Amino acid sequence: MKKTGLLIIDVQKGFDDPVWGNRNNPDAESQMVRLLSAWRKSGQPVIHVRHCSVEPNSLLRPELPGNAFKEEVKPLPGEKQFTKTVNSAFIGTGLETYLKEQNILSLVIVGLTTDHCVSTSVRMAANLDFEVTLVSDATATFDRLSDDGIHYTAEEIHNINLVSLNGEFCRVRSTAEVLKLLSSV
Amino acid sequence: MKKTGLLIIDVQKGFDDPVWGNRNNPDAESQMVRLLSAWRKSGQPVIHVRHCSVEPNSLLRPELPGNAFKEEVKPLPGEKQFTKTVNSAFIGTGLETYLKEQNILSLVIVGLTTDHCVSTSVRMAANLDFEVTLVSDATATFDRLSDDGIHYTAEEIHNINLVSLNGEFCRVRSTAEVLKLLSSV
Repeated sequence: MKKTGLLIIDVQKGFDDPVWGNRNNPDAESQMVRLLSAWRKSGQPVIHVRHCSVEPNSLLRPELPGNAFKEEVKPLPGEKQFTKTVNSAFIGTGLETYLKEQNILSLVIVGLTTDHCVSTSVRMAANLDFEVTLVSDATATFDRLSDDGIHYTAEEIHNINLVSLNGEFCRVRSTAEVLKLLSSV
Repeated sequence: MKKTGLLIIDVQKGFDDPVWGNRNNPDAESQMVRLLSAWRKSGQPVIHVRHCSVEPNSLLRPELPGNAFKEEVKPLPGEKQFTKTVNSAFIGTGLETYLKEQNILSLVIVGLTTDHCVSTSVRMAANLDFEVTLVSDATATFDRLSDDGIHYTAEEIHNINLVSLNGEFCRVRSTAEVLKLLSSV
């Protein structure tokens, strides 16, 4: 596998709060841990992105405990970190410049949530000319309600957001497929 | 209504080709025409975005007839136009600078397709601090197939993409609702 960054988006304690409602892929963090461990062993770059919300009622505000990275994906000393205030990991951060300076032109993206910050970051990464893989079982989202009262499950939102991204912005692959590619170098 | 730009994305003849498959919202262009006509009458700004693909097999390459704007939404002389080569109307264009220079901080977005160029542009507009309204019946998309062979209809893709955007990146409203807001100034 060519130089490929593992980009972990917004895997923060605030997302464990019940206020978010029903979530899909309860094992997403376990899959991220498998990828993170393999990335560290391989010496490929790991990049952590943390949301520092400026919304008054957000659980991800920088001064709140929910802002902290979940323990299982905490950065190690020396691993690159970026903080952001909007959905896209590429707006208001030095991420694009850093990746291009480091010649990291290929990204494997995981994190929370599939249809908000992950989708937005995948789209911008692709449009900024990075080659993107999105890991289907290492991202997750929550049930949502439309203004006209229709309830959509996390699983259907997740699946349709992936089908909208796949082929146009990224390749969607499973953790197992990505690990196989990594070990085939 | 405060100064609000009508941003029309990729309403080009190439999208009429049967190669795209089944589409939802066949009346989306008629709704765009209603909005465009009202915008022109009101003197609010209209901005046209045209996709000039660099993909070898795209029907929207600049030298092909499919690149042309559909007749019913063709720009009038003096209306601002931008061309783009990726999904986002904000990447590789002067759109953000233009809008901020003109003090157009509020956008009503319509066009094709809901889950590709429209969603990407809505997300970036919001993250660049514009106030965004997305018009549910003045955008449309096509059926898509996942890698594991599941067929998703244009209508379910459209609806779920809207629910993922609504509240987080924009307000989703109908043409009728937007026209009512415009006339209530």
